[in-house]
Amino acid sequence: MTKQELFEQIQLKKSYLCVGLDTDIQKIPEHLLAGEDPVFEFNRQIIDATHQYAVAYKPNIAFYEALGAKGWISLQKTLEYIPKECFTIADAKRGDIGNTSGLYARAFFDKENSGLDFDSVTVAPYMGEDSVTPFLDFPGKWVILLALTSNTGSKDFQQLVLAGSDNKEEFLFEKVIKKSREWADTEQLMYVVGATKAESLTKIRELAPEHFLLVPGVGAQGGSLQEVSEFGMNKHCGLLVNSSRAIIYASNGEDFAQKAKEEALKVQTEMAQYLAMYLK
Amino acid sequence: MTKQELFEQIQLKKSYLCVGLDTDIQKIPEHLLAGEDPVFEFNRQIIDATHQYAVAYKPNIAFYEALGAKGWISLQKTLEYIPKECFTIADAKRGDIGNTSGLYARAFFDKENSGLDFDSVTVAPYMGEDSVTPFLDFPGKWVILLALTSNTGSKDFQQLVLAGSDNKEEFLFEKVIKKSREWADTEQLMYVVGATKAESLTKIRELAPEHFLLVPGVGAQGGSLQEVSEFGMNKHCGLLVNSSRAIIYASNGEDFAQKAKEEALKVQTEMAQYLAMYLK
Repeated sequence: MTKQELFEQIQLKKSYLCVGLDTDIQKIPEHLLAGEDPVFEFNRQIIDATHQYAVAYKPNIAFYEALGAKGWISLQKTLEYIPKECFTIADAKRGDIGNTSGLYARAFFDKENSGLDFDSVTVAPYMGEDSVTPFLDFPGKWVILLALTSNTGSKDFQQLVLAGSDNKEEFLFEKVIKKSREWADTEQLMYVVGATKAESLTKIRELAPEHFLLVPGVGAQGGSLQEVSEFGMNKHCGLLVNSSRAIIYASNGEDFAQKAKEEALKVQTEMAQYLAMYLK
Repeated sequence: MTKQELFEQIQLKKSYLCVGLDTDIQKIPEHLLAGEDPVFEFNRQIIDATHQYAVAYKPNIAFYEALGAKGWISLQKTLEYIPKECFTIADAKRGDIGNTSGLYARAFFDKENSGLDFDSVTVAPYMGEDSVTPFLDFPGKWVILLALTSNTGSKDFQQLVLAGSDNKEEFLFEKVIKKSREWADTEQLMYVVGATKAESLTKIRELAPEHFLLVPGVGAQGGSLQEVSEFGMNKHCGLLVNSSRAIIYASNGEDFAQKAKEEALKVQTEMAQYLAMYLK
């Protein structure tokens, strides 16, 4: 999916909501557990209930891997079920030496090999350029690179100050953005930026004015959608804001899909306002 | 497996060789391709041929994931086939926010859920403490944290100099070691240290004198086993040196297992010498 196509979906649905499919077999409603593939059945109903209000879906790969081969099949069925106009993100946080990253790219982008054909994958930057570029060899596919995450551990390394040649303080996550901009253009590269750091968004927008940002941490992780939208939006919206638990676990009863729909609609309604206010 | 048990295996086999199972369906000998599970069959024969000379096996998870659910089954069968006295490493480079890392830990450590029961998993440090500690909740299981990798991209971020309070230059990878030492003891934490940086080993041993180091990059990636052993060995050996392609792809004919055995024996013979020379 191109940047322009994604922006068109955002305008059409008046939404930049990404629904995180962190589907935990230990948390899904009991009445689904008797079925053949409860994880897929849960996802299917969540997707049916929310796809009007969401432009993207983000299966969190850990939750599927934790179930072994069976989980991989649930993931494959889920990805096939997501409507084609929705942007799909393999939230996998991968990254390894060149030839290995090439294999991870096959895993998530090359349906013939793995059964999976995501639009994008999240990648960790620690191993540098040759760990990221193999994903970019797939035309039309995206890397979503971790820059600043929303967890407490983001302080440990991402927010370390680098020794610089000038007097300006530079954090590691800023260096990650600066350096990686050289590896791909805004048609193949997005950044993960934690929503709880809305004030950092202005700084990040200076470094990456045209990039899409994937913002986790609104909802259960506690970020403010208004702040993120005010400080993060650019002329192509440039934001995908993720919500996982607040939507998919809005209820753990038989009404879980209906409740998920109501939560997604609530977020979409708020987003429609912010698009009207902040789209530059 | 405990540190002491691992050291005993090293003494028994006079080897600290780890065989990397980077099993690529596109590279394995043609005569195996007709079988039901060529990846497992290749691994089975490699393990049979090398386990006398190797103390550890390291399946590179990307190569299995690239084949989807089928690859996951090959991985599971491979892990079950590895003799119990060998240390097993899921080379997965995972790392995510706390609850997600917990799921990755289930994927690699909790057989009941995923079918897999590795001794250890490689973890990327970028997301900090709460992305690493969930793996440590599994007693007797190990985290092998990326510190300094052997690829060219290690220069991009790992070797950046941090702004410090004193005059000593500190690299990011050194900070990763210093900080992570607080999260676990040497019974659950190892580091990945690229072999092509043998001179850095002295510095790393100052920071982590008692830890085991997993050293990739000897063989096809070009590090010197002698240098690594001289500068990296401690009183429990403290080294696992990986070789993947140089062993498993020593031949691509019907004699691949025999040739792998000869290569493994060659490395083990060298290692026996270094154990006699450098074990402190």
